[in-house]
Amino acid sequence: MKKPATGIRTVVSSTRRATTLLCAAMGIAGLTTAHAQTLDVPARSVPVPTTVSPQMAKIIGAPLRTNWNLLPKTGEEWKPVADAGAAGTIKNVPGMMERLRVKVEKTTIDGVRAFILTPEVIAPENRNRLLIHVHGGCYVLNPGEAALPEALFMAGFGHFKVIAVDYRMPPEAYFPAALDDGLTVYKNAIKTTDPKNIAIFGSSAGGALTLEMVLKAKQDGLPLPGAIAPGTPMSDVTKVGDTFVTNAMLDNVLVSPDGFCDAATKVYANGHDLKDPLLSPVYGDMKGFPPTILTSGTRDLLLSNTVRVHRKLRQAGVDAMLQVFEGQSHAHYYRDDTAPETKEAFEEIAGFFDKHLGK
Amino acid sequence: MKKPATGIRTVVSSTRRATTLLCAAMGIAGLTTAHAQTLDVPARSVPVPTTVSPQMAKIIGAPLRTNWNLLPKTGEEWKPVADAGAAGTIKNVPGMMERLRVKVEKTTIDGVRAFILTPEVIAPENRNRLLIHVHGGCYVLNPGEAALPEALFMAGFGHFKVIAVDYRMPPEAYFPAALDDGLTVYKNAIKTTDPKNIAIFGSSAGGALTLEMVLKAKQDGLPLPGAIAPGTPMSDVTKVGDTFVTNAMLDNVLVSPDGFCDAATKVYANGHDLKDPLLSPVYGDMKGFPPTILTSGTRDLLLSNTVRVHRKLRQAGVDAMLQVFEGQSHAHYYRDDTAPETKEAFEEIAGFFDKHLGK
Repeated sequence: MKKPATGIRTVVSSTRRATTLLCAAMGIAGLTTAHAQTLDVPARSVPVPTTVSPQMAKIIGAPLRTNWNLLPKTGEEWKPVADAGAAGTIKNVPGMMERLRVKVEKTTIDGVRAFILTPEVIAPENRNRLLIHVHGGCYVLNPGEAALPEALFMAGFGHFKVIAVDYRMPPEAYFPAALDDGLTVYKNAIKTTDPKNIAIFGSSAGGALTLEMVLKAKQDGLPLPGAIAPGTPMSDVTKVGDTFVTNAMLDNVLVSPDGFCDAATKVYANGHDLKDPLLSPVYGDMKGFPPTILTSGTRDLLLSNTVRVHRKLRQAGVDAMLQVFEGQSHAHYYRDDTAPETKEAFEEIAGFFDKHLGK
Repeated sequence: MKKPATGIRTVVSSTRRATTLLCAAMGIAGLTTAHAQTLDVPARSVPVPTTVSPQMAKIIGAPLRTNWNLLPKTGEEWKPVADAGAAGTIKNVPGMMERLRVKVEKTTIDGVRAFILTPEVIAPENRNRLLIHVHGGCYVLNPGEAALPEALFMAGFGHFKVIAVDYRMPPEAYFPAALDDGLTVYKNAIKTTDPKNIAIFGSSAGGALTLEMVLKAKQDGLPLPGAIAPGTPMSDVTKVGDTFVTNAMLDNVLVSPDGFCDAATKVYANGHDLKDPLLSPVYGDMKGFPPTILTSGTRDLLLSNTVRVHRKLRQAGVDAMLQVFEGQSHAHYYRDDTAPETKEAFEEIAGFFDKHLGK
């Protein structure tokens, strides 16, 4: 190797190649080359940040989910939990539809239950575009109309037509039922709409399903959608990733890597290998993926799941954008349609779709 | 307001507008509408993540900086601390120069101390491009050649010519000396290089200075650079932002919002209002900013400082990209030039510059 000439260069021994840990790179003495070690972080009180809207402050400041450590072990045990949660969500849906001016029709598409969401105003550039939504809820929650909030936000803020897939969940069906239902709807859609004009989106399990649908479409040789928006995806259900630990007991939605969401996912997986990319898509081959926008928050238990997918996409040469919101726990960005952060998140995604989808 | 027709719509009372906190949006019962509250997070042991390279695992697993709570109160007290840290850094510089094949010349530009970094290979598309580097170190650390590591990484991985500004620091000079020196170099550069072909970059205090230079250039009516890359910027030295609390005692570099970096910044500010956008640029008007790429890590004490700037830029309509690295504390991405994450971070920035700079 030719050594460059330099005015300030001093003697360089080849053994210096070995000393590459530049602990003093910032002029900060004290870091050592000790073996990697576990860090003991003391208890602390974490106030609600002052850097968010009043609406978001309420969401961030809510106590930890009660029953986060309630761990049903079968689909049958999950059903009443899912139904109770859904009832709470569904009563808010009409208000959202009114505020966001979106109408909803219930339908089935090639045997899959779905909703068609039509905003009062479809942007002219979106007339030939279609979004497909796969909801979150750890693969067991949010049946029926409880699937709708995020789809409504996207339709309302983004002025797109949206099909929300009400995929089968335990105890009705197990892995890969959710993925199969999502793909059935996608395959039907590309019969009449150019795939380049279609985007797939969803958060949490829906974020994972978005990635899984593209992985499976690649495997099956289907044309890929024009863009995707996996929000805080459950991209690694083996629970590997730093923020599973660092944001535990801080994220007030998921709370812990050993909580309800982990239990629910295992029920859906039904014994299938959790490291299969169709359950943990961070392990999939993302080469050739369409442009992707990812969303998370600084307190999100799945922040690592999100940024690891972002890096993986970038390593694969995919046009991928990341937005991370101040102070937000898992999927806080689609709680309150009146919070400015909600509008901001969905308008960012809509802008990304507008930039990348065909017309 | 016209109410959209819908097949599933039920009775909507106008009073429902008030109940907009959609705690059940994910079908998760248990969140309440209680007033925003402080969260008590228990102590925990945080292992080094398995999702990073062995080189990065060493950096992440290093113990907390010793003397993080050593708080010199004057420029004179800081000088020996800065000199000791610099000595540790400088001895690694020749090895970096050799590995990255970059030569360095010491110079002064209109009276400002600087280094000119020339990589052995300048990419053909970069022949008429120039990067200006402003180093980090809380406005008091990394004098002289200790300013070089990040500039070397950018020159070596990105194949750009770089001018690294060795700006004045306490006790030699105080706010706004660092900013003035950076701008002096920029003003000199635009005499011979099209501003659209120039990018400014730096991390920590250097990230803040990058933003401050653009804010000041706007104020002074100067043409703006073609792109910027503020890494984990000290964008809010009033210490507002959620990760100042959530990542305290977890970030092994800055450790605490009340640590050495805060003390050093106050010495540099020398009594000036810390909320002035020329010290806390997150409060500045970012309309018209050039395309910007921001870098941070999930354990970074300044993750909020970083994502708040990203959102602010996007709100101002600026083309802004965010990259967040798994498990990394403050500015870990420029510690070890042999870590794959380091190459990845700088190649991402180089690609962004290539996309946005004139030729």
